[in-house]
Formats: sequence, C-alpha cells, structure tokens
Amino acid sequence: LTEVEQIPIWRISEGEKKRVEDVIAREFPLTIILNNKELVTLLCTPAHLDYLAIGFLSSEGLLKSKDEIKKITLDDKRGVVRVETSEEIKQADEIIFKRLITSGCGRGASFYSAADVIGQKKIESKTTISANEILELTKDFQHRSNVFEKTGGVHSAALCDNKKILIFSEDIGRHNAIDKIFGQCLLQDVTTDGHIILTSGRVSSEILIKVAKRNIALLISKSAPTDVGVKLAGDLGITLVGFVRGKRMNVYTNDWRVVGHG
Amino acid sequence: LTEVEQIPIWRISEGEKKRVEDVIAREFPLTIILNNKELVTLLCTPAHLDYLAIGFLSSEGLLKSKDEIKKITLDDKRGVVRVETSEEIKQADEIIFKRLITSGCGRGASFYSAADVIGQKKIESKTTISANEILELTKDFQHRSNVFEKTGGVHSAALCDNKKILIFSEDIGRHNAIDKIFGQCLLQDVTTDGHIILTSGRVSSEILIKVAKRNIALLISKSAPTDVGVKLAGDLGITLVGFVRGKRMNVYTNDWRVVGHG
Repeated sequence: LTEVEQIPIWRISEGEKKRVEDVIAREFPLTIILNNKELVTLLCTPAHLDYLAIGFLSSEGLLKSKDEIKKITLDDKRGVVRVETSEEIKQADEIIFKRLITSGCGRGASFYSAADVIGQKKIESKTTISANEILELTKDFQHRSNVFEKTGGVHSAALCDNKKILIFSEDIGRHNAIDKIFGQCLLQDVTTDGHIILTSGRVSSEILIKVAKRNIALLISKSAPTDVGVKLAGDLGITLVGFVRGKRMNVYTNDWRVVGHG
Repeated sequence: LTEVEQIPIWRISEGEKKRVEDVIAREFPLTIILNNKELVTLLCTPAHLDYLAIGFLSSEGLLKSKDEIKKITLDDKRGVVRVETSEEIKQADEIIFKRLITSGCGRGASFYSAADVIGQKKIESKTTISANEILELTKDFQHRSNVFEKTGGVHSAALCDNKKILIFSEDIGRHNAIDKIFGQCLLQDVTTDGHIILTSGRVSSEILIKVAKRNIALLISKSAPTDVGVKLAGDLGITLVGFVRGKRMNVYTNDWRVVGHG
C-alpha cells in the first residue's frame, strides 16, 4: 500500500499542452469489523490503518482503553480490519449500531444534540500558549505536510505540545487524520491531556466533539470553523484558533489561553 | 435561516490583538424522512434545503423523476424535510436502508465496488470545451463564491454550459453543494445532459459517481482528484480536469474533449 500514485496527465499552461507525470492521493476503502459485526467503511489514505480503526472506534465511544482490545487483524489486501474487544463491550452492540446509523454517518451528524455533548464535561485545563508558539507550530506543521505538497489532496493533523509536534498524520479525510492520531495515542499510551491539536481542515461540530472527548483544551486550524463548532468550543471551554496564515490568526473562544501576543 | 452568522472574535496580527466582527458559515442538521422513514441527517448550509433533500435522494438512486414526488414538506425550525413518493418506491425500502447503512454513509463508501458503478454506462457525449472557456468559467465561478469569500468555510458547485454558469450553489459540504444543483435540476426540469459540473472541492469516487449518474461528460475542479476518482473518470468516459488555477490546469482523463489550448 502506498499513499500516493504517479500517473501521466496532460498539463495545459499558458496555451501549451504537455504530457507530464503527476502524483495523486490514493483513496482506499477500509471496512471496520468490531466483534464480527461490520460497522462502517471509511474512504481513507492507506497508511496506519490500525491507528485509523482504533481511533474511529474510540471517537465513537466504542473503545475506552488499550486493555479492552483483545486482537486487531488487518487484511490490507481486502481492506478489512477486525477488532475484537472484551466482553462488556460486545453487549453494547445494539446501542452502538443505532447510534452509528442515525448519527455516526460522517455524511452529517447532529452529534451536538445527542448524548455525546450532554455527557461532555467542560474542559478546565489551565494550559496556555503564546501567539508566537502557535505561528511556529503551524510553520512546522506546514513543512511536514508532504503528501499534501505532492498531491494537494489530503488533510493533515498533529498532536503537539507548546514547542513541538509529537504525532503527525495525513489522510484524504479530515476526520480520519484526527482519528489516526487518537488511535496512535491509545495504542502507544500517549496522553492527550494538556496537549494541542493542529488541523488543516475546517472545524465543524464533529471535529470539535472528537477533540473535546480527549480533554484537549486547544484546537488550532488553518481553516475556518462553523457556527456550531464555535458555539461548542465556547460551551466546552476549548480555545479555538482558526485561519492561522502568515502572521495572523483568529481566536474564536476562550481567548485567555492565548498569551503574549503584544 | 441564514447561511452565515456574524460574531465577535479576537484577531491577532503582527503582535496586536484586536476585537473584530467576523462572519462564519452556519452548520445546520437536516434530517431527511422518506415515506415516513428517517433516512439520514446531513450537516449542511441552511439554504435550498428542498433542493438538497431531492438531490440527495436522487443521487442515492431513490428518486428518478419529478413525477414520482407526491409531496415535500420542509420544517426548517426542526430541521426536517419529509418527502413522499409514489407507491413503487416505497417497496424498495429494505434495499434502500441496507445500502445507506453499508455504503451510503458519506463518512466513506466503497461505492465503486458496488452496483452503482456496475450499472453505470460509459458516457458517449461528444461535447468539447476549449481551455479558454474553462478558464473563463472558473473565473466567473470564483466571483460568485460569496459565502466562501466571507467565511472561507464553504464549497461551491455549478452547472454550466461552455459559455456560462446555469445553476450555482454553496454548502459547507462538497457533496451537498453538488446535490443541491441536481435537486434543483430535477425540480425545475433542467437537463444535465451535455452540461458541465464545476466544483471547488476534491474529486473522490463519491463525487465522480454522482456526476456520472447524470450523464455529465465534463467535471472541472479547482482542487485535486484521488486515484479512484481518476480511474472511474477514465473508465466511465468522463473528462476530468483539476487544479484549475491561474492560467493552468491538469487534464486527467479523456483529454480529447479539451480543445483549442494552443
């Protein structure tokens, strides 16, 4: 499996047509089977598929810790990952499927009106960051976005502390890029507490809730948030920074965590 | 319902922090109920919700023509649109739901391995377009993208002929923006045959299949395609143009439809 593919294309530029080699992002269907039940098929970038599966299950509330995982079997020829978990989880089957069908579909979910948010505690972290640190992290983030540089077709996400990127991931889906990070955190016992998420993608309610569930107080995006993303960030105590470009950024909520700007 | 919302934010720029008014894209959950069965909840931009519902149903193969629609009832307070269709369609219920659950979830669908593509005929249209016409259409497309200009948070799509934009739409979801166009076409008896789709978004398999189903031979994107998008476009006889920026573009497949470039 490779993340990109090289193909011949025609490039038209200033009235000239030339045959050139181009690099495009691959799209791969990964079916996640939890305890012998087919859960969902994600279109994704074919790398770190185990992280994606575990991150997805965890984001959907179907997995809380590494200890619950009995076995992960990845068949990357057929695009199937099987995850087996401990007994207690199996019994949650019915609830799980109901939820995935009505609201888990990434094609749109009114998560924020559901149990997801009602059960979500306000994030009390006292973490702060300076505007300069945000600009430095974003610059490094941009440099690391290799697949995007090549193809223009993928999103990036990163887990950071104030000074450096700890985990970096890329995927054709902005949700997947973040789930891959959380999957890696869970499998490798990396805490998300007190850390920061960087994303290249827009911040809708779904992204905000994913991040809130990890107790992350700072979410920084190169793109725009939606109104619901902003409302949730405000309510849940998350500092949402968007449109970090050049030396500029927008702070939408809980601006007290961004210090030393003047 | 409005498409955007104005909110106060903090802008940090060159070391200064200022309170300013910003405009952000709204995010609205629309639940589609087909013949009294809840089908899906889409997160969308709250405008032209009837077009979105009808376009979605049509893209999913649940609606073929305007004549099949008995009633559309939109409750935009509760975010619900009810569509009632003629008898024959009701009987397809079981199949429909199975498909939506396993592959209709926009969070990823291996559509291209499913009946969708197997039943799809190759597009034989002899339509051509000049590189200059593509650049002119894209320029106009850019100008019309009002919500994007304001918020940076939405996608645009348009149905065009070689000379002008016929229908334009915007949505926080790139799938939705295209479905809104097709919904309007169906409700207003606008043919898609021989026409062109312009999109601001990436071209994945799902987008390609949506367009192929309408017998559209030319798909032009400002962004990148995935490898599966390119393969499907090649196989289905669609001319796929991407990365239209400045005076430059990439022609990925069926390049004979792009003429007069030199």
